[in-house]
Amino acid sequence: MSLGAKILVACLNPALDITHEVPEVDWDGVNRPTAVHARPGGKGTNVARTLHSFGIPVLLLGLAGGGTGTAVETGLRQLGVPVEFTPVAGETRRTFTVVDGRGRVALFNEPGPEVSAAEFARFWVAYAAALAEADAVVLSGSLPRGLPAGQLAGLITQAAAAGVPAVLDTSGDALREGIAAGPAVVKPNLAELEELSGRALTGADGEAELAAVKSAAAALRADGAGAVVVTLGRAGLLAVTADGCWRARPPAALAGNATGAGDAVTAALAHGLVLGRRWDERLRHAAALGAAAVAAPVAGEFSPDAYAAGLGSVTVRRETVQPEEGSSCR
Amino acid sequence: MSLGAKILVACLNPALDITHEVPEVDWDGVNRPTAVHARPGGKGTNVARTLHSFGIPVLLLGLAGGGTGTAVETGLRQLGVPVEFTPVAGETRRTFTVVDGRGRVALFNEPGPEVSAAEFARFWVAYAAALAEADAVVLSGSLPRGLPAGQLAGLITQAAAAGVPAVLDTSGDALREGIAAGPAVVKPNLAELEELSGRALTGADGEAELAAVKSAAAALRADGAGAVVVTLGRAGLLAVTADGCWRARPPAALAGNATGAGDAVTAALAHGLVLGRRWDERLRHAAALGAAAVAAPVAGEFSPDAYAAGLGSVTVRRETVQPEEGSSCR
Repeated sequence: MSLGAKILVACLNPALDITHEVPEVDWDGVNRPTAVHARPGGKGTNVARTLHSFGIPVLLLGLAGGGTGTAVETGLRQLGVPVEFTPVAGETRRTFTVVDGRGRVALFNEPGPEVSAAEFARFWVAYAAALAEADAVVLSGSLPRGLPAGQLAGLITQAAAAGVPAVLDTSGDALREGIAAGPAVVKPNLAELEELSGRALTGADGEAELAAVKSAAAALRADGAGAVVVTLGRAGLLAVTADGCWRARPPAALAGNATGAGDAVTAALAHGLVLGRRWDERLRHAAALGAAAVAAPVAGEFSPDAYAAGLGSVTVRRETVQPEEGSSCR
Repeated sequence: MSLGAKILVACLNPALDITHEVPEVDWDGVNRPTAVHARPGGKGTNVARTLHSFGIPVLLLGLAGGGTGTAVETGLRQLGVPVEFTPVAGETRRTFTVVDGRGRVALFNEPGPEVSAAEFARFWVAYAAALAEADAVVLSGSLPRGLPAGQLAGLITQAAAAGVPAVLDTSGDALREGIAAGPAVVKPNLAELEELSGRALTGADGEAELAAVKSAAAALRADGAGAVVVTLGRAGLLAVTADGCWRARPPAALAGNATGAGDAVTAALAHGLVLGRRWDERLRHAAALGAAAVAAPVAGEFSPDAYAAGLGSVTVRRETVQPEEGSSCR
């Protein structure tokens, strides 16, 4: 490993993210955007971009098709991100965002292509080959239509067989089944954790109820995850690990674009994993990078200054856990 | 000409038209479209598609770049439309339409690439070569950013030098300067004619004031146009020609998608030109095809049944003109 640890990122449902800035939107007429942006998107794509901008050797795998798939791949190559997409017959999805002058944001998410079993089998061949060179794998984002929820679990099992630890960031059944396959780290947000645990984890004030969050996260460890890192938005991170429970808090509420902040956290967790950092340091970096992503206007990018500043100002604290919150969090 | 007359269509600023159907739009949240359509767009592209679907030999020329340009070209090839785009460094524009369940339509038009003089010079070479094989040329749509308004006039002059009559459908200064170059036919809509003539042409009820429209159209003939056909929406067409004034009316107000109806009229006028049809027959076909385009859900397509029916039910009438309306309309 002359270039250091290599991280494989799988983005099964990448996107072309298109943003139009329209000062005064006419929702029943013709608009002429004053600014247009188009960039590679999807959670795994953001993770790979962030790791790449750290100088970490990365390979992005995924499934892509049509002109939109070509545009995503071209955009990644222009950014210098190594990418190997398996072609599919369907058209890669677009996301379309309209930002108006009053800060309202309307997002239109296309469903993306339906992927056949034969196409996914070809992806699997590329994935298995890439695992031989990888020190960690990140599985991030939704499954394409047409694939059973258990396919992410299968990819984790395949990685484990190659001795490669997995970081998982997805939702719903794919998350539930993926956890059972034993990923090293899972990174749900509060909504995903609520869906999985089947109960509300916020109080009447809308803030996370930490005791309940710890308990729900500990349950995911019991189900198979090596560690669980819950993103709490402006309230930072809560981690339940074999090394205990930790809370990382950014110094202050940040203004900016929260889209992609979770992906920055995922990237930092994967980096901390391959570096073998202590959990408190992993979380310090993850919280600082998440905050630095909020400070950048574009998902998949971060503010290096905000990151450097955040490393000094994030507070990381070991959490005590009440017995009823689960024995795995001590 | 073993295959009959060939029509060259120049679309300098083509587009990829993307439509999202969203039953209940949240203008400040996340939407998941129930249907997504993407197809080649731009006025000239619609004209070429319509002519091609009549079996008329056509060649579409234009300027295109980036992944979106590739997507437009791929889409045209899939439709079988012969196309020869000159590559440009900028990214071809997208139009994005959101149709909600209550019939509201929000359209977002990207400006499209800025085209350099060197890029346009390369287009010109392709255009001049294609003129040698053409019986008519259609110049339809807006000029890309970066090109002076007089460039369409230059293309008309070049065509005239090759003995090829031109049909012009554009707006603003490009229309004004183009008319001076002597196109065989110009096809303004009411708004374009109002802008050019500098006066309102509708009454208090919003309907076109025919006498004023005739007068304004006659003025464009005096400025250089061989014939002027004004599209009046549901009120049909008004033509001022060397053969007199004509009015063509569809039988009834049509429900449907008026986008692209003007392009169908342009296609029919070009077809009538190369066939040497009498003006009343040109207008009958043009009005019927415009109505048939309204009856089709997609710009650039038309309903063959509505077209056939329209040919029998459109009324074409020679108009009398008052002396003050211009001597060229007698």
